[in-house]
Amino acid sequence: MLVVYPDYINPNLFCISCSISSTLCAMESAINTLVSEFKTFAGKDGSSDTLSKEEFRSLVACQLPNFVQNSSDPAVIDQLMGSLDENNDGELTFLEFWQLIGRLANKHGGFSQ
Amino acid sequence: MLVVYPDYINPNLFCISCSISSTLCAMESAINTLVSEFKTFAGKDGSSDTLSKEEFRSLVACQLPNFVQNSSDPAVIDQLMGSLDENNDGELTFLEFWQLIGRLANKHGGFSQ
Repeated sequence: MLVVYPDYINPNLFCISCSISSTLCAMESAINTLVSEFKTFAGKDGSSDTLSKEEFRSLVACQLPNFVQNSSDPAVIDQLMGSLDENNDGELTFLEFWQLIGRLANKHGGFSQ
Repeated sequence: MLVVYPDYINPNLFCISCSISSTLCAMESAINTLVSEFKTFAGKDGSSDTLSKEEFRSLVACQLPNFVQNSSDPAVIDQLMGSLDENNDGELTFLEFWQLIGRLANKHGGFSQ
Protein backbone atom coordinates (compact mmCIF):
# COMPACT_ATOMS: atom_id res chain seq x y z
CA MET A 1 0.00 0.00 0.00
CA LEU A 2 1.50 3.30 -1.09
CA VAL A 3 0.95 5.94 1.57
CA VAL A 4 1.25 9.64 0.78
CA TYR A 5 1.82 11.64 3.93
CA PRO A 6 0.73 15.27 4.27
CA ASP A 7 3.71 17.53 4.99
CA TYR A 8 2.79 17.86 8.63
CA ILE A 9 2.90 14.13 9.34
CA ASN A 10 6.23 12.58 10.15
CA PRO A 11 5.93 9.07 8.74
CA ASN A 12 8.39 7.87 11.34
CA LEU A 13 6.05 8.66 14.20
CA PHE A 14 2.89 6.73 13.40
CA CYS A 15 2.03 3.83 11.17
CA ILE A 16 -1.05 4.57 9.11
CA SER A 17 -0.70 1.63 6.74
CA CYS A 18 -1.52 -0.99 9.36
CA SER A 19 -3.52 -1.26 12.54
CA ILE A 20 -0.51 -1.16 14.84
CA SER A 21 -0.78 2.01 16.90
CA SER A 22 2.67 1.96 18.44
CA THR A 23 5.49 4.24 17.42
CA LEU A 24 6.96 3.25 14.09
CA CYS A 25 10.35 1.71 13.51
CA ALA A 26 10.82 0.15 16.92
CA MET A 27 12.60 -2.67 15.09
CA GLU A 28 14.95 -0.29 13.31
CA SER A 29 15.81 1.39 16.60
CA ALA A 30 16.44 -2.00 18.18
CA ILE A 31 18.73 -3.01 15.29
CA ASN A 32 20.58 0.31 15.70
CA THR A 33 21.10 -0.46 19.38
CA LEU A 34 22.52 -3.92 18.67
CA VAL A 35 24.90 -2.52 16.05
CA SER A 36 26.07 0.39 18.19
CA GLU A 37 26.60 -1.72 21.31
CA PHE A 38 28.56 -4.27 19.28
CA LYS A 39 30.78 -1.46 17.93
CA THR A 40 31.27 0.01 21.41
CA PHE A 41 32.65 -3.25 22.74
CA ALA A 42 34.48 -4.23 19.53
CA GLY A 43 36.29 -0.88 19.57
CA LYS A 44 38.03 -1.45 22.88
CA ASP A 45 41.12 -2.99 21.32
CA GLY A 46 42.39 -4.12 17.91
CA SER A 47 39.87 -4.26 15.09
CA SER A 48 36.78 -2.18 15.76
CA ASP A 49 34.72 -4.48 13.52
CA THR A 50 35.31 -7.72 15.45
CA LEU A 51 35.17 -8.90 19.06
CA SER A 52 38.25 -10.42 20.69
CA LYS A 53 37.58 -12.93 23.45
CA GLU A 54 38.10 -10.27 26.11
CA GLU A 55 35.74 -7.89 24.32
CA PHE A 56 33.20 -10.70 23.94
CA ARG A 57 33.49 -11.56 27.66
CA SER A 58 32.94 -7.92 28.55
CA LEU A 59 29.95 -7.58 26.21
CA VAL A 60 28.25 -10.73 27.50
CA ALA A 61 28.80 -9.75 31.16
CA CYS A 62 27.57 -6.20 30.66
CA GLN A 63 24.87 -6.55 28.03
CA LEU A 64 23.54 -10.11 28.22
CA PRO A 65 23.67 -11.02 31.94
CA ASN A 66 20.06 -12.18 32.06
CA PHE A 67 20.03 -14.03 28.75
CA VAL A 68 23.32 -15.96 29.15
CA GLN A 69 23.39 -18.19 32.22
CA ASN A 70 26.62 -18.03 34.25
CA SER A 71 27.84 -15.22 32.02
CA SER A 72 30.76 -14.48 34.35
CA ASP A 73 32.12 -18.05 34.11
CA PRO A 74 35.22 -18.16 31.84
CA ALA A 75 34.32 -21.70 30.74
CA VAL A 76 30.94 -20.46 29.49
CA ILE A 77 32.64 -17.70 27.52
CA ASP A 78 35.16 -20.16 26.04
CA GLN A 79 32.39 -22.53 24.99
CA LEU A 80 30.24 -19.78 23.46
CA MET A 81 33.18 -18.20 21.66
CA GLY A 82 34.22 -21.57 20.24
CA SER A 83 30.72 -22.33 18.99
CA LEU A 84 30.47 -18.98 17.18
CA ASP A 85 33.97 -18.41 15.79
CA GLU A 86 33.47 -20.41 12.61
CA ASN A 87 36.90 -19.73 11.14
CA ASN A 88 38.67 -20.09 14.51
CA ASP A 89 40.58 -16.83 14.18
CA GLY A 90 39.90 -15.77 17.77
CA GLU A 91 37.71 -12.88 16.66
CA LEU A 92 33.93 -12.70 16.22
CA THR A 93 32.52 -10.83 13.25
CA PHE A 94 29.16 -9.10 13.57
CA LEU A 95 27.42 -11.91 11.66
CA GLU A 96 29.05 -14.58 13.83
CA PHE A 97 27.84 -12.67 16.90
CA TRP A 98 24.39 -12.28 15.30
CA GLN A 99 23.95 -16.06 15.40
CA LEU A 100 24.34 -16.02 19.19
CA ILE A 101 21.75 -13.32 19.80
CA GLY A 102 19.44 -15.09 17.34
CA ARG A 103 19.65 -18.24 19.46
CA LEU A 104 19.09 -16.23 22.63
CA ALA A 105 16.16 -14.35 21.12
CA ASN A 106 14.62 -17.58 19.79
CA LYS A 107 14.83 -19.15 23.24
CA HIS A 108 13.68 -15.98 25.00
CA GLY A 109 10.67 -15.77 22.69
CA GLY A 110 9.71 -19.38 23.32
CA PHE A 111 9.90 -20.30 19.63
CA SER A 112 10.63 -23.86 18.56
CA GLN A 113 14.21 -24.68 17.58
CA MET B 1 34.75 -10.76 37.40
CA LEU B 2 32.19 -11.80 39.99
CA VAL B 3 30.29 -8.78 41.23
CA VAL B 4 28.35 -8.84 44.48
CA TYR B 5 25.76 -6.11 44.58
CA PRO B 6 24.53 -4.55 47.82
CA ASP B 7 20.77 -5.00 48.17
CA TYR B 8 20.09 -1.40 47.27
CA ILE B 9 21.79 -1.59 43.89
CA ASN B 10 19.77 -2.86 40.96
CA PRO B 11 22.35 -4.61 38.76
CA ASN B 12 20.20 -3.87 35.73
CA LEU B 13 20.72 -0.14 36.05
CA PHE B 14 24.48 0.35 35.95
CA CYS B 15 27.38 -1.73 34.80
CA ILE B 16 30.12 -1.79 37.42
CA SER B 17 32.12 -4.64 35.88
CA CYS B 18 33.29 -2.66 32.85
CA SER B 19 34.01 0.91 31.89
CA ILE B 20 30.81 1.41 29.91
CA SER B 21 28.77 4.01 31.74
CA SER B 22 25.50 3.59 29.86
CA THR B 23 22.46 1.87 31.27
CA LEU B 24 22.88 -1.87 31.36
CA CYS B 25 21.18 -4.39 29.17
CA ALA B 26 20.45 -2.16 26.20
CA MET B 27 21.06 -5.25 24.07
CA GLU B 28 18.59 -7.34 26.03
CA SER B 29 15.95 -4.63 25.68
CA ALA B 30 16.62 -4.45 21.95
CA ILE B 31 16.28 -8.24 21.62
CA ASN B 32 13.01 -8.05 23.57
CA THR B 33 11.75 -5.44 21.13
CA LEU B 34 12.59 -7.56 18.08
CA VAL B 35 10.87 -10.61 19.61
CA SER B 36 7.76 -8.73 20.69
CA GLU B 37 7.34 -6.90 17.37
CA PHE B 38 7.74 -10.18 15.49
CA LYS B 39 5.04 -11.75 17.67
CA THR B 40 2.73 -8.76 17.21
CA PHE B 41 2.81 -9.14 13.44
CA ALA B 42 2.94 -12.95 13.43
CA GLY B 43 -0.19 -13.03 15.57
CA LYS B 44 -2.41 -11.30 13.04
CA ASP B 45 -3.58 -14.52 11.41
CA GLY B 46 -2.86 -18.26 11.56
CA SER B 47 0.16 -19.37 13.54
CA SER B 48 1.34 -16.76 16.02
CA ASP B 49 4.89 -18.11 15.80
CA THR B 50 5.40 -17.59 12.06
CA LEU B 51 4.90 -14.81 9.52
CA SER B 52 2.67 -15.37 6.50
CA LYS B 53 3.54 -13.34 3.41
CA GLU B 54 0.88 -10.75 4.28
CA GLU B 55 2.16 -10.48 7.85
CA PHE B 56 5.73 -10.19 6.52
CA ARG B 57 4.66 -7.45 4.07
CA SER B 58 2.98 -5.56 6.89
CA LEU B 59 5.97 -5.91 9.21
CA VAL B 60 8.47 -4.73 6.59
CA ALA B 61 6.30 -1.75 5.60
CA CYS B 62 5.66 -0.71 9.19
CA GLN B 63 8.88 -1.61 10.97
CA LEU B 64 11.65 -1.62 8.37
CA PRO B 65 10.76 1.17 5.92
CA ASN B 66 14.18 2.82 6.11
CA PHE B 67 16.25 -0.37 6.05
CA VAL B 68 14.46 -2.14 3.17
CA GLN B 69 14.51 -0.18 -0.05
CA ASN B 70 11.18 -0.07 -1.90
CA SER B 71 9.52 -1.86 0.99
CA SER B 72 6.05 -1.22 -0.42
CA ASP B 73 6.86 -2.95 -3.73
CA PRO B 74 5.20 -6.41 -3.86
CA ALA B 75 8.07 -7.74 -6.02
CA VAL B 76 10.55 -6.77 -3.29
CA ILE B 77 8.49 -8.60 -0.69
CA ASP B 78 8.20 -11.68 -2.93
CA GLN B 79 11.95 -11.74 -3.50
CA LEU B 80 12.80 -11.27 0.18
CA MET B 81 10.27 -13.86 1.30
CA GLY B 82 11.61 -16.38 -1.22
CA SER B 83 15.20 -15.82 -0.12
CA LEU B 84 14.34 -16.40 3.55
CA ASP B 85 11.74 -19.17 3.45
CA GLU B 86 14.21 -22.05 3.38
CA ASN B 87 11.62 -24.84 3.44
CA ASN B 88 9.25 -23.02 1.05
CA ASP B 89 6.20 -23.46 3.28
CA GLY B 90 5.00 -19.89 2.80
CA GLU B 91 5.67 -19.02 6.43
CA LEU B 92 8.74 -17.46 8.03
CA THR B 93 9.94 -18.76 11.39
CA PHE B 94 11.64 -16.38 13.80
CA LEU B 95 15.08 -17.77 12.91
CA GLU B 96 14.39 -17.42 9.17
CA PHE B 97 13.35 -13.81 9.80
CA TRP B 98 16.44 -13.30 12.01
CA GLN B 99 18.66 -13.91 8.95
CA LEU B 100 17.04 -10.94 7.19
CA ILE B 101 17.54 -8.49 10.02
CA GLY B 102 21.10 -9.79 10.44
CA ARG B 103 21.80 -8.90 6.82
CA LEU B 104 20.17 -5.48 7.26
CA ALA B 105 22.07 -4.83 10.49
CA ASN B 106 25.36 -5.91 8.91
CA LYS B 107 24.82 -3.54 6.00
CA HIS B 108 23.54 -0.73 8.24
CA GLY B 109 26.62 -1.09 10.47
CA GLY B 110 28.99 -0.94 7.51
CA PHE B 111 30.54 -4.31 8.31
CA SER B 112 32.13 -6.43 5.58
CA GLN B 113 30.01 -9.23 4.15
